[in-house]
Amino acid sequence: MRTTGRQPCVITVASRQRAQFIDITGQIRALLREQPALADGPAITVFVPHTTAGITINENADPDVMADVNNALEKIAPWRAGYRHAEGNSAAHIKAILTGASARIPLENGRLALGTWQGIYFCEFDGPRQRQVLISG
Amino acid sequence: MRTTGRQPCVITVASRQRAQFIDITGQIRALLREQPALADGPAITVFVPHTTAGITINENADPDVMADVNNALEKIAPWRAGYRHAEGNSAAHIKAILTGASARIPLENGRLALGTWQGIYFCEFDGPRQRQVLISG
Amino acid sequence: MRTTGRQPCVITVASRQRAQFIDITGQIRALLREQPALADGPAITVFVPHTTAGITINENADPDVMADVNNALEKIAPWRAGYRHAEGNSAAHIKAILTGASARIPLENGRLALGTWQGIYFCEFDGPRQRQVLISG
Repeated sequence: MRTTGRQPCVITVASRQRAQFIDITGQIRALLREQPALADGPAITVFVPHTTAGITINENADPDVMADVNNALEKIAPWRAGYRHAEGNSAAHIKAILTGASARIPLENGRLALGTWQGIYFCEFDGPRQRQVLISG
Repeated sequence: MRTTGRQPCVITVASRQRAQFIDITGQIRALLREQPALADGPAITVFVPHTTAGITINENADPDVMADVNNALEKIAPWRAGYRHAEGNSAAHIKAILTGASARIPLENGRLALGTWQGIYFCEFDGPRQRQVLISG
Repeated sequence: MRTTGRQPCVITVASRQRAQFIDITGQIRALLREQPALADGPAITVFVPHTTAGITINENADPDVMADVNNALEKIAPWRAGYRHAEGNSAAHIKAILTGASARIPLENGRLALGTWQGIYFCEFDGPRQRQVLISG
């Protein structure tokens, strides 16, 4: 994690599978404790600087939920489906667009105003890879 | 609606059906009139603290549009489709991820800079329920 | 492009096809150079004030990627599929909701903190039309 003046903070994520939802809520909470200027704002922006990964917010309790989400995305964009993109990972790009590259979460007294069952997930769609997530105001 | 210092504002929504798109634009406009500090910013964040509901922005004129949207989401994620999650509402989680938990809308002189045909919708996917929507800077 | 006090900046986009992904990254970079107040913030909001267009962030190198994305969205929402909305463009509304009306991108020393392969795309789903994109803090 780093921040200097007018730069976003960066957290790193190591994915282990081709498609994987990684709960980064704890890393973001730790960042807010370390960065009072960030925690002082009305909300934070969570952004992935990648084109085959996304950010989503959903259930943090039963891992079967994200398994079902993964299956639903796989049905929309199967890995092999006659895509034109020669690199072969168009399914990952499609899933990244459907989940989105950014999310914004309000803060309540410097802490994430998430619902009881919400976690912030880094969505890997073309792993395993070393990835970054940017956090800003 | 409430706000105190460094807290998001909260509006409440009561859904009446399992899947329902509820136009909350009027409630958000009223909030902006009551909260000058919020209206003074460049944009607002609209956030659902739930995992089976979403926020979207779309046509506010012909209700058939949102009926067609609802049918399209139902095709992507039918209520029963052999999901693993035992609670039985994985379709709602999938739809919530596709619509997204947050939206951000620019302000123009303290008012929502929405297009002529745009409304802000709370998307219920597992109702009927009492729900909250958080509004922050 | 314009901005006056508490108004978002506006860029215009002319689409040429019914469905088209138009890279507006260069226009947004130019805007940031012209608007120091905007470039001074922690992030920008990019918003479409239309209901049959969206904003997404994805690969800016191989145009086949966005062609594959277009085909995938067309499979989810074919132009003709027995929709109720009499205007006949429900497919465009559905695609607009799936891509989303807003994105937020962190700034690094006043410049877009995009990844190497990321571009910001205006997503036309019911063109050709003259369109606007709003940029705010």
